[in-house]
Amino acid sequence: MCEANAYLRQPDGREKLVMENVYRLRPEGRRLLLENIFGEQLLLDAELARVSLMEHRLVFQPRRPD
Amino acid sequence: MCEANAYLRQPDGREKLVMENVYRLRPEGRRLLLENIFGEQLLLDAELARVSLMEHRLVFQPRRPD
Repeated sequence: MCEANAYLRQPDGREKLVMENVYRLRPEGRRLLLENIFGEQLLLDAELARVSLMEHRLVFQPRRPD
Repeated sequence: MCEANAYLRQPDGREKLVMENVYRLRPEGRRLLLENIFGEQLLLDAELARVSLMEHRLVFQPRRPD
């Protein structure tokens, strides 16, 4: 299985786990909608910081103001 | 292996394959840098449209003007 875990960067630089087993991701307005294999959905007001499919890791960071 | 193929949405809606076996993705300035398992790198002036890890599919679309 190729799902990934989603992490959100904290102000102190730590990457906090916010959702496991994410298999789908798409923008929803200005936010990102993550879905996992358990049917859970998570809306993040964040932008993508890094994807590493080898590490099964999706890292997000708070969205920068335009 | 959990790499994905990267597609870029065309004006006619088709999703054109632009890179195979991508395993890493990160923003590089205002563009996105994709890297594949063959050591190739691709800079896309695009934004993420959709990720489906089950389908091993990363879909991008041309960046909308701010």
